[in-house]
Amino acid sequence: MSTFKTVRGMRDFLPKEANMMNFITEAARRTARLYGYDEIITPVVESYELLAAKAGEEVRLRMYAFKDLGNRAVALRPEFTPSVARLVATVLKNEPKPIRIFCTGSLYRYDEPQRGRFREFWQSDFELIGSDRPEADAEVLMLTDDLMHAAGLKNCMFKVGHVGILRGVMSQEGLEEKTQNSIMQLMDKKEYAEALNLLGTAGASEKCTQTIGRLVRIRGAKISETLKKMREYIENYYKAAAALENLTEILKLVKNSGSEISLIVDAGFARGLEYYTGMIYEVNVPELDVALGGGGRYDKLVELFGGEPTPAVGVAHGTDRIMLATHEQNVSSSEWNENRIMVIPVKEELAAKALEIVRMLRKANLCVEVEVMRRKINKALEDADRRRMSYAVIVGEKELKVGSVAVRNLTKREQKIVKIKDIVEELKG
Amino acid sequence: MSTFKTVRGMRDFLPKEANMMNFITEAARRTARLYGYDEIITPVVESYELLAAKAGEEVRLRMYAFKDLGNRAVALRPEFTPSVARLVATVLKNEPKPIRIFCTGSLYRYDEPQRGRFREFWQSDFELIGSDRPEADAEVLMLTDDLMHAAGLKNCMFKVGHVGILRGVMSQEGLEEKTQNSIMQLMDKKEYAEALNLLGTAGASEKCTQTIGRLVRIRGAKISETLKKMREYIENYYKAAAALENLTEILKLVKNSGSEISLIVDAGFARGLEYYTGMIYEVNVPELDVALGGGGRYDKLVELFGGEPTPAVGVAHGTDRIMLATHEQNVSSSEWNENRIMVIPVKEELAAKALEIVRMLRKANLCVEVEVMRRKINKALEDADRRRMSYAVIVGEKELKVGSVAVRNLTKREQKIVKIKDIVEELKG
Repeated sequence: MSTFKTVRGMRDFLPKEANMMNFITEAARRTARLYGYDEIITPVVESYELLAAKAGEEVRLRMYAFKDLGNRAVALRPEFTPSVARLVATVLKNEPKPIRIFCTGSLYRYDEPQRGRFREFWQSDFELIGSDRPEADAEVLMLTDDLMHAAGLKNCMFKVGHVGILRGVMSQEGLEEKTQNSIMQLMDKKEYAEALNLLGTAGASEKCTQTIGRLVRIRGAKISETLKKMREYIENYYKAAAALENLTEILKLVKNSGSEISLIVDAGFARGLEYYTGMIYEVNVPELDVALGGGGRYDKLVELFGGEPTPAVGVAHGTDRIMLATHEQNVSSSEWNENRIMVIPVKEELAAKALEIVRMLRKANLCVEVEVMRRKINKALEDADRRRMSYAVIVGEKELKVGSVAVRNLTKREQKIVKIKDIVEELKG
Repeated sequence: MSTFKTVRGMRDFLPKEANMMNFITEAARRTARLYGYDEIITPVVESYELLAAKAGEEVRLRMYAFKDLGNRAVALRPEFTPSVARLVATVLKNEPKPIRIFCTGSLYRYDEPQRGRFREFWQSDFELIGSDRPEADAEVLMLTDDLMHAAGLKNCMFKVGHVGILRGVMSQEGLEEKTQNSIMQLMDKKEYAEALNLLGTAGASEKCTQTIGRLVRIRGAKISETLKKMREYIENYYKAAAALENLTEILKLVKNSGSEISLIVDAGFARGLEYYTGMIYEVNVPELDVALGGGGRYDKLVELFGGEPTPAVGVAHGTDRIMLATHEQNVSSSEWNENRIMVIPVKEELAAKALEIVRMLRKANLCVEVEVMRRKINKALEDADRRRMSYAVIVGEKELKVGSVAVRNLTKREQKIVKIKDIVEELKG
């Protein structure tokens, strides 16, 4: 019976996973606060027109689109950026720049489900709107690094590029933007041979194809060396050279701030979304072959949504992908391991007294479950053991007469009689 | 252009509201931990069959239902309970009882938008599965009360009833369950005259109509007195009397635990959803005419989803409604008021040095924005003032030469030179 299954591509997160999802979302929220990004919440259901406006075809065709009961064409958001752009072009229009915005939640794309790729997925999204300065690009790179550390991840590797370099070469050679887009998309899929072929077909000069062909092979962790190599090839392309200069400035800022981000520069790096205009990046861990986050500069986006021309840079991090990575790296979220206490009245008549003690413990921030099955003590204790609870508080008549209860340490398997007024201290100590 | 609007019934939450939504969600999550409820995350998109299975017609007709690209009949969840029941009937089938589950997130119903009622809304949901004891009913009542306090609300008033009383009378009089459902639904809408009429039409005895007519007028904050009145009317209805006995036990437990819940007992209280079988309740504040939360016992639900017969009690709290209430009661979430600091390099060449200082401050958990617009100092300070930031740290050449920066207290309008190693202390002190 299909009732009993999640819909294909959708998942349940059981407590341990859900707890890690929250831990990562809180890490993102904390990073947002430390960097001055204000959180907003936008709807999961937006107008189809808004969401389709600047999505590439690949995203547009995979949206969950439908008509609501009022016959409006709507869809489930496949990314946050259109909603943020909508706000920036309307409600926040007169807000002085820079505007720093954070949002987090679930997104929907009808992709083929596979490891790290689901039809419902979660992201934390940071947008810095109004600055065209390299400080802004450096800031998002650094916050991604901080977020990954806050989530407990090790060995993060950043791949950084700049769409202005390849596009600079192509536009100086007179290639149309549409052709450029197709070539960038092929490069995003690492189909470099096809990209170079298309360049030829589209009428690029031999020099252009050669330059691009050389550039896409340049990648390296030695930053100044790699940038220098790139500089040699694009000497005569002034737009590309300016883009490279911009990338150099950004990476210098990151380095001189003392940040210890590990990164490689990749001259052939392209990202699927068409709206990027400058520096782009992705972050990975060795254990997973999907990126944990990615972003870059998109100076034309707000304008495309009808706002004023506004420079902007942003990044999205995959919460559920980061969760997968924490699993691979055996990161544990501390909260999960907190002490749990079971309170058991030995008979029905003591249920209210047990609840009174439970209220006292919870007021002291202790996590308490009270016996609601009216099981025999031994049954209840077995259950508490199985669920790895730390303590049982047994409320019995004899002990109550002298203002006490039995406190059982389930790890050490020791039991002692404790005055009710001293239980909190006993359980916390 | 429709692109620039949210879809009807959907909302954006700007930073102040979003912050309060998070504060309330965290209050719910904290309550869940203190009570031993494990969080799970289930999909927003579920099979239509699952969601429609036990929803009343009113909910079913207002679901956001559509076909996905694989032609599956799906819908956006209008409530959490079917998803939880699905898990309990499958993955958690062999988990020993009691199972305590918490979930939170957005839900969707195509209702007519009005104050406190939107088409996208948020709830925190608690389900206690496996116990038919009054301790379990008392627990959910008490956790709702704790949650409301944790959210900062005052003057919460609980309305408590028991569907077993009215249904007990009706079933002993031989009325079919379907008729009972219709009558309960009329009562939920407070259409008592219509309900009594329908009783007559459905062939209930005069005594039955009279008893129900008397019961629905009984409501009061003096608990034992109110329960006593009810007891008089239903003396000869043994099922109704057993239900009343159960309600009495639950309320006695709550009272004797020392809890200070304010509640009224309402004999004519009914809730829209058909699946309730026992105690039901809602919580309100005087400032709003929609309930902030509601729940009760539904012993047959898991069975209806194909699981074993399983007693259960649960409650859902409206996160965005609670936010409205906190607004009415001028509750402020503390986090919103934390100090914000702006760091401003006096010239371009000092940008990396400024970033280095920023990194140090964030490591000390300070919330810092760095100047990314390359504005003149005065412009940047004006902006910091307007946004009510607490401090500005000005990074200048002269001060740097002696290892210092200028720290400006924007509230007191005082400025002093501080050694870089002492800034954290200065800003926190």
